[in-house]
Amino acid sequence: MAVDTKERCRNETLGARADGAFCDGFPFSKMRPAAKTRLIKEGMPQVFSRGHVIFMHEDQAQRFYFIKSGWIKLFRETIGGDEAILDVLPPGSVFGEAAFCEGGVYAYGAEVIENCEIVSYPLSLLETETRENGEFTIEFLKHVAARGLARDKEIELRSVQNAAQRIGCFILRLCREESGNETTLCLPWEKSLIAARLGMAPETFSRGLARLQKDTAMAINGPVIEIPDIKMLARYTCVACSNVFPCKN
Amino acid sequence: MAVDTKERCRNETLGARADGAFCDGFPFSKMRPAAKTRLIKEGMPQVFSRGHVIFMHEDQAQRFYFIKSGWIKLFRETIGGDEAILDVLPPGSVFGEAAFCEGGVYAYGAEVIENCEIVSYPLSLLETETRENGEFTIEFLKHVAARGLARDKEIELRSVQNAAQRIGCFILRLCREESGNETTLCLPWEKSLIAARLGMAPETFSRGLARLQKDTAMAINGPVIEIPDIKMLARYTCVACSNVFPCKN
Repeated sequence: MAVDTKERCRNETLGARADGAFCDGFPFSKMRPAAKTRLIKEGMPQVFSRGHVIFMHEDQAQRFYFIKSGWIKLFRETIGGDEAILDVLPPGSVFGEAAFCEGGVYAYGAEVIENCEIVSYPLSLLETETRENGEFTIEFLKHVAARGLARDKEIELRSVQNAAQRIGCFILRLCREESGNETTLCLPWEKSLIAARLGMAPETFSRGLARLQKDTAMAINGPVIEIPDIKMLARYTCVACSNVFPCKN
Repeated sequence: MAVDTKERCRNETLGARADGAFCDGFPFSKMRPAAKTRLIKEGMPQVFSRGHVIFMHEDQAQRFYFIKSGWIKLFRETIGGDEAILDVLPPGSVFGEAAFCEGGVYAYGAEVIENCEIVSYPLSLLETETRENGEFTIEFLKHVAARGLARDKEIELRSVQNAAQRIGCFILRLCREESGNETTLCLPWEKSLIAARLGMAPETFSRGLARLQKDTAMAINGPVIEIPDIKMLARYTCVACSNVFPCKN
């Protein structure tokens, strides 16, 4: 059972997306057809292994990136050598796309955490489109605003949720597509990375996970999680949030 | 000495700004002259007392706000009744201005924390300007992106700084305009609010403040803080940050 679930999760996260697939989605669908064609033509596919750093925080930004398969973490390193993880991105995500309106440098570093197929595109094409195509600019503005709202949400959750609720919230987000009230899923990354993404020390994460199991009816076995009552988990978690499940951001 | 310093701080934070002063600054300086004139003409001044809630999270957004004098906190309330403070804004700040590209609702509540003179303006005028004036749109895009970067910074600091460093960072930001290496300043708000702004429980804040005094040469007496060596404070704090003092965000 656990092995099947792991395999299912692996297949879901590794299902490779087509190059330029992001062009059909928000905000890129508002690009002019000729601009889309040129963008896709100038796409440069690359394969990277786990641990490869694609760019560092404050590097001059020339290109933006689309994740066909694999996972990427966005991070910043402090002067003292510690690392803050700002986000972890699944296949289908785009990153570095706002650098041209953020001073022309990347606002974070990007590192491969699971072998990746990446396609990069010239950032200058996006910048030109923003200057020449008002309809796209408005959509891109909404896109950048939505990213800011997601960060606001992160700050809210870090302010008010305890460790067990924060882990519960992370797991609940993996259940958003579920139609029933019970499910079995597996954690998409190793626990140390989830802890870092949630801004927790590993021991805080372990204690939070233990408390979460004690307080809800969840059973956690390695990376596999059985949730017999999603609504109960939502009640436990969402009391420390300004939204209700299933949340939009 | 302490009283003089308090009085000086009070005068600085209460120096009333002129209505529409924000129009001369980024990103609003790129509005067309006629749009600026219309905006200022439709400005509605109001005076609010401490505790007044100007709007709540997810209220329909009709207007945006300029703080002439006083302080405002931006917050969200959880279903369980806890509060997360997203930001605390000084005189001269604008808030609610991005709501038209954030789904037409406010992304936070706004509450007066020190008696305020506020001027509000129709959000629709900003939205029209965004649709009709490409030069303004680009500037507004940069403005929204910069707000997102400030949130990224907040997440980074909450991930890697300990409580003493976080308080030190807050104090250091108050020293950014100092030309020398020593200063005396007073905390702009009461300690419980600073703790909430930094995402800390009051007791964590107290312990952090005690540790900060022990680890650096600072002397804290009520709201008055004497810093004999700003560079030393920066070394202590900025080791847990990706920027160096004086930082931009």
